[in-house]
Amino acid sequence: MKFIEDYILFVERNLANLNLPNKPVNLYEPISYFLKLGGKRIRPVLTLLSAELFGNEKESAINAAIAVELFHNFTLIHDDIMDESKLRRGEKTVHEKWDDNIAILSGDVLFVNSYKFLQKQKASDLSKLFFCFNDMAEKLCEGQQMDMDFEKLKLVEQDSYLEMIKLKTSVLLGCALEMGAIIAQASKADRKLMYDFGVNIGMAFQIQDDILDLYGDSELIGKRVGGDVINNKKTILNVSAYKLANTKQRDLLFHYSQIKDEDLKVNSFKNIYDELNILDYCNNLRLQYYESAISNLKALSVHSENSKLSLLAKELMNRKK
Amino acid sequence: MKFIEDYILFVERNLANLNLPNKPVNLYEPISYFLKLGGKRIRPVLTLLSAELFGNEKESAINAAIAVELFHNFTLIHDDIMDESKLRRGEKTVHEKWDDNIAILSGDVLFVNSYKFLQKQKASDLSKLFFCFNDMAEKLCEGQQMDMDFEKLKLVEQDSYLEMIKLKTSVLLGCALEMGAIIAQASKADRKLMYDFGVNIGMAFQIQDDILDLYGDSELIGKRVGGDVINNKKTILNVSAYKLANTKQRDLLFHYSQIKDEDLKVNSFKNIYDELNILDYCNNLRLQYYESAISNLKALSVHSENSKLSLLAKELMNRKK
Repeated sequence: MKFIEDYILFVERNLANLNLPNKPVNLYEPISYFLKLGGKRIRPVLTLLSAELFGNEKESAINAAIAVELFHNFTLIHDDIMDESKLRRGEKTVHEKWDDNIAILSGDVLFVNSYKFLQKQKASDLSKLFFCFNDMAEKLCEGQQMDMDFEKLKLVEQDSYLEMIKLKTSVLLGCALEMGAIIAQASKADRKLMYDFGVNIGMAFQIQDDILDLYGDSELIGKRVGGDVINNKKTILNVSAYKLANTKQRDLLFHYSQIKDEDLKVNSFKNIYDELNILDYCNNLRLQYYESAISNLKALSVHSENSKLSLLAKELMNRKK
Repeated sequence: MKFIEDYILFVERNLANLNLPNKPVNLYEPISYFLKLGGKRIRPVLTLLSAELFGNEKESAINAAIAVELFHNFTLIHDDIMDESKLRRGEKTVHEKWDDNIAILSGDVLFVNSYKFLQKQKASDLSKLFFCFNDMAEKLCEGQQMDMDFEKLKLVEQDSYLEMIKLKTSVLLGCALEMGAIIAQASKADRKLMYDFGVNIGMAFQIQDDILDLYGDSELIGKRVGGDVINNKKTILNVSAYKLANTKQRDLLFHYSQIKDEDLKVNSFKNIYDELNILDYCNNLRLQYYESAISNLKALSVHSENSKLSLLAKELMNRKK
């Protein structure tokens, strides 16, 4: 995404100069290791773009942007422990490279540092910024807990699933955007619209993620398709299928979830999904969120058409990987 | 401690009415379970007493006080995972009663809630409060990491040990007191003195803790004496003994640390400690910290003699359990 390259570089430069302490080595080394693994840096860029949209220089929001990125990485380090993930961006996760204790504590101190960066913003904005950030952080923990709870369930309602991805993924985008608006002294109404825009884009993004896992191009997404089906993971495809299925189809879905042969399992699910038109159904859901996001932007008191934010929303919607 | 009973009850009443969400159950139930296990509530009381000393009502500092107590409990939940502790105040720890993942995430959301309570203080104080709180939280993580690193070492220098307990234990007391002073609009010099008072009391407190484990009355401390010696735990007794020992005595200390018979091990260590006058040496160190704490109080711009804070410091110094 060429048009946000400068913003990404600006974030990267700041991440490379955090000036965290060196000692204790076992506390801070995992953090610099993890931050160097990279990532799209979409979240901090959203904060910068939002501040700019309301007439501020991007520099004015950099500490809040860094806070968002550090917080995001803290959640990844802790989530990787909970999900027993061995790899992150092709490299060992912190708890794999070191151990669980070091991953817990490095995560904790990274969390503290997200607050330390947020606190560097102007004193008069802190009350609003902290309110927004704390609310998001609490919701994110709730979303992660729901996700873990869902793993133990045979069946998850579509509404519960949508609520979970909202809490676990989307509110962080909403918060990133609202903080940019707070820093640029946007009105309460505009702040709320930016938050909603972020949440809606986040929902569309996560739904696209679920869709690509089964219907994407394996070369583009860099892994075999159908991984979620094989692992019986709850996805929008899965919960929507259970919602739309009749009793016979439901029984078949339960039955198929026990299949050991991976190709057979993926194809069996795909057949029922085709019968139920799940791909169209989910793409439609995704479009609804996208359209809501765009109307949020349009309702702003500032001109947003062809803004970098609306271009970014479009790119995220049409991504193939 | 009769003279602070009202303050403890005030804290308990507020802890009983936190109004945390109920759902997800697996996220919030562990928190209310853990908070109900009790504790001395010394830290939040320090915040209240500090605000009062500078002329404020205790009510003005209650949210910061609750933030301190929630933060303290968050660290206990995570420390219990890392230390594999099965019991806390005679009851199961969170990771034992539920599991590690739930303990990690409940701890995280409790941490967020400590910030949520802090944020309820007056907006004009937030910048100073957050600076103080973030600095403390970062130091505390560093102290816990040093403690874990020390477990793998055969020998720890006395200076490093003192630095570790300062970070892991004392700075939280310093922060609790400084926040009360911030809320009561104390001067920068007074705030610093309150912080130092807390750190010094914290050091004296922790040293007393180490001493009581070996030289306390087993009936009063509610466990057998010498547990730290048996577990080869680094304590002020242990690191001071290595500091003062000659080569022969050092070799003996290393040798004794391998003894399997618990009584023999405790008595062997005690003999060398007696040869080296370790008890006097450590009591003297403890007194030095206590005296520094008292001079911090005396240097304040407000009258503190016979204040509840100085009485509390005295009580903590002379405790037998």
